[in-house]
Amino acid sequence: MSKIQPRTLKGFRDFLPETMIPREQCMWTAREVFRRYGFAPIDTPTLEYLEILTGKGSEETDRQMYQFTDHGGRKVGMRFDLTIPLARFAAQPAQALGTPFKRYHIAPVWRGESPQAGRYREFVQCDFDTIGTESVVADIETVVVIHDLMRSLGFSKFHIHLNNRQVLTGLLEHLGLVERAVPVLRSLDKLAKIGPEATIAEMQSTAGVSEDEARSVLRLAELEGDYQQILAALPEITGNNPTAGGGIERLQTTITSALAAGVEPSRLRLDVGIARGLDYYTGVVFETFLDELPGIGSVCSGGRYDDLAGLYTKQHLPGVGASLGLDRLLAAMGELGMLPSVRTPAAVFIPYFDAARLTDYLRLATLLRTAGIGCEVYPEAKKLGQQLKYADQRGFAIALIAGARELDEGKIQVKDLHHKIATEVDFSWDQPEPLFNAIATASQLSAGSLLA
Amino acid sequence: MSKIQPRTLKGFRDFLPETMIPREQCMWTAREVFRRYGFAPIDTPTLEYLEILTGKGSEETDRQMYQFTDHGGRKVGMRFDLTIPLARFAAQPAQALGTPFKRYHIAPVWRGESPQAGRYREFVQCDFDTIGTESVVADIETVVVIHDLMRSLGFSKFHIHLNNRQVLTGLLEHLGLVERAVPVLRSLDKLAKIGPEATIAEMQSTAGVSEDEARSVLRLAELEGDYQQILAALPEITGNNPTAGGGIERLQTTITSALAAGVEPSRLRLDVGIARGLDYYTGVVFETFLDELPGIGSVCSGGRYDDLAGLYTKQHLPGVGASLGLDRLLAAMGELGMLPSVRTPAAVFIPYFDAARLTDYLRLATLLRTAGIGCEVYPEAKKLGQQLKYADQRGFAIALIAGARELDEGKIQVKDLHHKIATEVDFSWDQPEPLFNAIATASQLSAGSLLA
Repeated sequence: MSKIQPRTLKGFRDFLPETMIPREQCMWTAREVFRRYGFAPIDTPTLEYLEILTGKGSEETDRQMYQFTDHGGRKVGMRFDLTIPLARFAAQPAQALGTPFKRYHIAPVWRGESPQAGRYREFVQCDFDTIGTESVVADIETVVVIHDLMRSLGFSKFHIHLNNRQVLTGLLEHLGLVERAVPVLRSLDKLAKIGPEATIAEMQSTAGVSEDEARSVLRLAELEGDYQQILAALPEITGNNPTAGGGIERLQTTITSALAAGVEPSRLRLDVGIARGLDYYTGVVFETFLDELPGIGSVCSGGRYDDLAGLYTKQHLPGVGASLGLDRLLAAMGELGMLPSVRTPAAVFIPYFDAARLTDYLRLATLLRTAGIGCEVYPEAKKLGQQLKYADQRGFAIALIAGARELDEGKIQVKDLHHKIATEVDFSWDQPEPLFNAIATASQLSAGSLLA
Repeated sequence: MSKIQPRTLKGFRDFLPETMIPREQCMWTAREVFRRYGFAPIDTPTLEYLEILTGKGSEETDRQMYQFTDHGGRKVGMRFDLTIPLARFAAQPAQALGTPFKRYHIAPVWRGESPQAGRYREFVQCDFDTIGTESVVADIETVVVIHDLMRSLGFSKFHIHLNNRQVLTGLLEHLGLVERAVPVLRSLDKLAKIGPEATIAEMQSTAGVSEDEARSVLRLAELEGDYQQILAALPEITGNNPTAGGGIERLQTTITSALAAGVEPSRLRLDVGIARGLDYYTGVVFETFLDELPGIGSVCSGGRYDDLAGLYTKQHLPGVGASLGLDRLLAAMGELGMLPSVRTPAAVFIPYFDAARLTDYLRLATLLRTAGIGCEVYPEAKKLGQQLKYADQRGFAIALIAGARELDEGKIQVKDLHHKIATEVDFSWDQPEPLFNAIATASQLSAGSLLA
């Protein structure tokens, strides 16, 4: 019979153990962080009625959506983000839960976009949101969670940029440009890429504003200094507009409270230029950048929105949240050398050395696992050299080597596979502590290789 | 604007926190068990080329598969199990990994079957397999992992049934019925449902065997007693057939070694009647039943197969593995009262009691989280009664209540929300231990409500 060529679809990925181990670890870390703030997990279907999904994102997401007709003739689509499912969820079963409702959702989404470096057709989103409250406390907590997430994932050199959309809105009110907000902010979003003069020119040509008006917007966006200096300068620049004033007050509270809650001051940056999309966000907005890899863009972004589920329910559901860019972060961790090269989640390898002593190796493995030490028994009594080669290839930290003689004499050789150092320790079934201690010592030597 | 009716597709589920918290916990437990045996995680795409997926399962799975044409005109399907993706994976990227290869894969699959009680169109599979070795050690380990999985998930009353397909094959060789194996075993699979006399009648009518031949098959399948008694009886019943002899020897080794590795003898049952499908399995087969809910069927099943990836590669890839029925197990846990009713993953609730003391509540929350205690701060300074009602509804175990007076006097009230017992403890930012101790005490009282 001719073989079928084993291949994967463009833009889709197989995850081998060495990429899946850190990937799982990061998702687990995110989960742990969300949980310690009281965010609860939810999940929603991969497939939704097409009418639920279409028209809520952009024309682009509609075009990229995987959609088809199911066995029952229903038009269905695969979710392309976790926000629209949350909106539908909030309007439907979550109504019974009451508010505030804090949820996290870690799950794959699909977009049939052109695959390119770092862009995939299937990728995981890690979202957390607090729904049903306008309180600034939820804004503050979002900053604290982002900071905790980044620290818990092992990053120390990063900056969280924050702003409040009301400040920009207030300035545009002050300048009488509210109706031109969309093209003005769309131009402003390009500032970092094209520079101030080109931005001013574009605002004039696409939004039809005067050069002076464009310069006022730029003057705001380019404010620099520490957050107190910027906050102090904002009332004058925005002509004491009350909308801007509301945003300024919330920024003040958000920043000072986040610092009180333990966010490192040097990692928080008030950046009055960021708008993050034009329609969706209405209050605070966040972006997070790695100091060593600013070029990869924001790795954790979000903000406050006014009305999550307006398409599905009359209930007013304001909220605030953010999304961690897992694929981007893992790529960055790889580039920064933060990922150990390990293809096994277990630390200890037990060669099947003496064919007649299988039961001893199995008992030994059970003893270790009961003590919380992961281990693998090689399934075939091959030559020791071949088995240790396998162990090296998989990245095991430690091998426990024992032939008939050692087992009879109550000895086991503990071999640190990374440093090629072997120690013989006393071993008995009743008193395994010396063995456990030797494994712990060898593990410390191999620190970094023992992923939790 | 008219609203879109928020609804989900038939056979698909939203998971609210109270169902998702134990669901995540079970997946995590399974992951931990797999890892301590050296099984490494992998993931594969949700969508595969249709030709990869069709024709490998049954006509039924082909018919039920969600399939469509993607943006690039490719015919694609959503995976309906994790075995075919593993086969494709083993023939493609995993070739470079070498063997033995031990992987686990916890991921959703989709089948457009008629939804009925306990059957869904989207459900999670938890599979683990050891590929590339024929060694009985991998068979033994599979039994040990199933036992560990069930114990770790909190079950004590269950039985693992095992058999080796070679015993049945050997009997059919002995009886000269090898060509009629498919209809004979298909009839045998119905034994538990329709009883021995109907099974014998069916074997005669569908497989065209004699009554004596049918009775010989039944005599084997109905063997009872402890495993030693059954193993001792098998050579005679199978006419000392060598194929059966190989199976008997492997069963002997598998059972005695699994017991040596810590499997509880009373939980292991040699059941020579189970065949588990007709074509796929070639050696050991497993099924797992809950003593208290035998009617729900096997909750963890699997076995040994000869050639995993024959459709994709010439490489001979034998293997052994099993699959945990997560949805079935969770349903059983619900029925057996093993699931706590909790809608939050955090143990501690901090009411926002005094509007002026927000910073203190946030600092307190950070202090707890740093000590590993999950907590939620209510985002609005509403009346305490309203906030505690929210905490009760969510199932928090403990509330830490502190107004301006308490905070100034260095006191916090620790309230056990389940037993409505409040204790006032001394608190200072430098010496939070008395608070931590009071929380630990209250947590123990509420044991069971604090999901890890």
